[in-house]
Amino acid sequence: MNIDEIRNDTKGCIDKIFLNSAGASLMPRIVLDKMKSYLDKEEQFGGYETANLMTSEIQKFYNETAKLINCKPENIAFTYNATDSFSKALSSIPFSEKDCILTTNDDYISNQIAFISFRKRFGVTILRSVNLPNGDIDLENFEMLIKKHNPKLIALTHVPTNSGLIQPAEEVGRLCQKYDIWYLLDACQSVGQIKVDVQKIYCDFLSVTGRKFLRGPRGTGFLYISDKVISKRLEPLFIDMRGARWTKFNDYEIEMSAKRFETWEFSYASLIGLKEAIGYANKVGIDNIQNYNKDLSQQLRKGLSQVSNVEILDKGSELSSIVTFHLKDLKLSEIEKTLKVNKVYYSISNKDSALIDFTKKGVDWAIRFSPHYFNTVNEIELATELIENLK
Amino acid sequence: MNIDEIRNDTKGCIDKIFLNSAGASLMPRIVLDKMKSYLDKEEQFGGYETANLMTSEIQKFYNETAKLINCKPENIAFTYNATDSFSKALSSIPFSEKDCILTTNDDYISNQIAFISFRKRFGVTILRSVNLPNGDIDLENFEMLIKKHNPKLIALTHVPTNSGLIQPAEEVGRLCQKYDIWYLLDACQSVGQIKVDVQKIYCDFLSVTGRKFLRGPRGTGFLYISDKVISKRLEPLFIDMRGARWTKFNDYEIEMSAKRFETWEFSYASLIGLKEAIGYANKVGIDNIQNYNKDLSQQLRKGLSQVSNVEILDKGSELSSIVTFHLKDLKLSEIEKTLKVNKVYYSISNKDSALIDFTKKGVDWAIRFSPHYFNTVNEIELATELIENLK
Repeated sequence: MNIDEIRNDTKGCIDKIFLNSAGASLMPRIVLDKMKSYLDKEEQFGGYETANLMTSEIQKFYNETAKLINCKPENIAFTYNATDSFSKALSSIPFSEKDCILTTNDDYISNQIAFISFRKRFGVTILRSVNLPNGDIDLENFEMLIKKHNPKLIALTHVPTNSGLIQPAEEVGRLCQKYDIWYLLDACQSVGQIKVDVQKIYCDFLSVTGRKFLRGPRGTGFLYISDKVISKRLEPLFIDMRGARWTKFNDYEIEMSAKRFETWEFSYASLIGLKEAIGYANKVGIDNIQNYNKDLSQQLRKGLSQVSNVEILDKGSELSSIVTFHLKDLKLSEIEKTLKVNKVYYSISNKDSALIDFTKKGVDWAIRFSPHYFNTVNEIELATELIENLK
Repeated sequence: MNIDEIRNDTKGCIDKIFLNSAGASLMPRIVLDKMKSYLDKEEQFGGYETANLMTSEIQKFYNETAKLINCKPENIAFTYNATDSFSKALSSIPFSEKDCILTTNDDYISNQIAFISFRKRFGVTILRSVNLPNGDIDLENFEMLIKKHNPKLIALTHVPTNSGLIQPAEEVGRLCQKYDIWYLLDACQSVGQIKVDVQKIYCDFLSVTGRKFLRGPRGTGFLYISDKVISKRLEPLFIDMRGARWTKFNDYEIEMSAKRFETWEFSYASLIGLKEAIGYANKVGIDNIQNYNKDLSQQLRKGLSQVSNVEILDKGSELSSIVTFHLKDLKLSEIEKTLKVNKVYYSISNKDSALIDFTKKGVDWAIRFSPHYFNTVNEIELATELIENLK
């Protein structure tokens, strides 16, 4: 991994300390160049003719994505964001009033809102497994809930947005396989920062966004669906002429690939951008990225843990590149002022976006630093020093 | 309306005869320039910081759109395409098994597929009103169906994609008002080519795409919702942290504007592009556009009707800028070859995307020319001559 080359490809990282890849990361130059050149073609030829001219480039999106998560291109649908991926997956499970969804206390706010919407609309029950004292999911409790309630769907957030946790996607996958339960994994914050192999995880759905650790454009994402979803003919509630052929006045036939989870219309310029971003990650190598990121985030946690008034909020035995912490006896506005003056880019997680987790942790907010492989050891030191000097 | 200036702003129209605005039109230069400059900012500052910097530009999208269709900015939600708009609207009606949807034989394929999906999933009934011999919707039959079946929703396609028809959106609106029925108007092909005033139409939902007669980027659209939808608290099935606040572990509160129909994440570069496209239409003036287009499409239909083997397929008393026709005794492949060689950009409508309409008309395909206000009288003459010479 050539860090100089990577930073040279990343215009935005030069004049600041960018630690917000869990929000929306910095795109490599090639992503922008290809998007702009695609838009130029659309200006010249119109949207439809351009898509015809660029068929093979468009197909590469499916190939690169399949390579990244270890599946076939026909298992991939392009989507607009993780909510879009997640909604389409959720909509394909024909829930009835007696059904329940099993999830965890650490699942993402928008997923929790979707489950609540399904509770209100269809009467489904939401179950949440408890955590062990160290923050990990309690897999014994999880299996007990499966045996007791026979959930229709298990939904897990691989890497929660508001804590450093990595949830045990493969172990949960084994339980889903054992009890034959549909398995939806939200990999919004994991794909691009750690290795995600759907053959090992054994999920039926994997929902992903483009703009975070994948370094793609905003308004992009993808959905992986398993061969089982394809062969069992699950179909999204809102299927259009992309996913179905209108065969009789009151009937249609569905496409036999993940295309049935796509809408007919989307931004091909954005798809091309995401293709480039995923291709870039494949070229750098996800193993390299994972190892580098692990070192950086360990260094960051170690540095911060030595600052007396810092409380690191990350829990769990496996931690990600999302580092969340709280500062005792300091106003958030003061901290933010210092970070801004010193050009540190970060996020704040608020309690209302992490209601269960932050209630347990007893905090109203957390600062979130999320370094990625274009960051340097030196930047991590500088950011840590800044926090230290805040005392 | 300064046609030279308009053509000067439209790079793609110079070296070809572009007659596919009903597919995906040509974007004015300003749309591309603003999108690219937005993407440059994202490369430099990241996606979140850029959106913060551009708040007032982003707000202008809502203002320009509200101006175009005569409503308040808070009645507008940004979406990814017309299917997205339409699905979100449809998802907000809590259908039960006894409910029915009233629509027409001329409604868009993807809408028909959505109704069929709802029939399969929830058991709703689909009713379609008959047409008068001239192709217009039979409003007496329509009202009879309302009285007999008390539909939960009336869904109308304003301008069908596969025929020149303009459906009577205002008359249907008066019936919806009279009988207090939710009214969803698909204005995908009408907004941008003719004046659409939601106060006169009295619809509850208006679903629109960006890439067609509005000349915006691909992968953009919007949804208008009425004050009644807002106050009656209809909410989309897939609501996320943009549209709802997570207030209790198992409950949320919805936003009281159309924002509750948006997802949290989208492509702001695309939104900026659509804002520019709508601003451009507002500047040229929708009345000017409508008048100019009416003249052009009348000229085109008149010219084509004088060619002996041309059968114009458009029916109805009010016709749009979508001109569909068939050529007797000629192979489609031959026609397409000639059009391509002569750089005429057009679309083919196939029977499977217009099942009901084309079954009635007894055709398997139609050529679709859709001129827009950057086209000239001379181009219409040239295109007509080409068709004439095919004999």
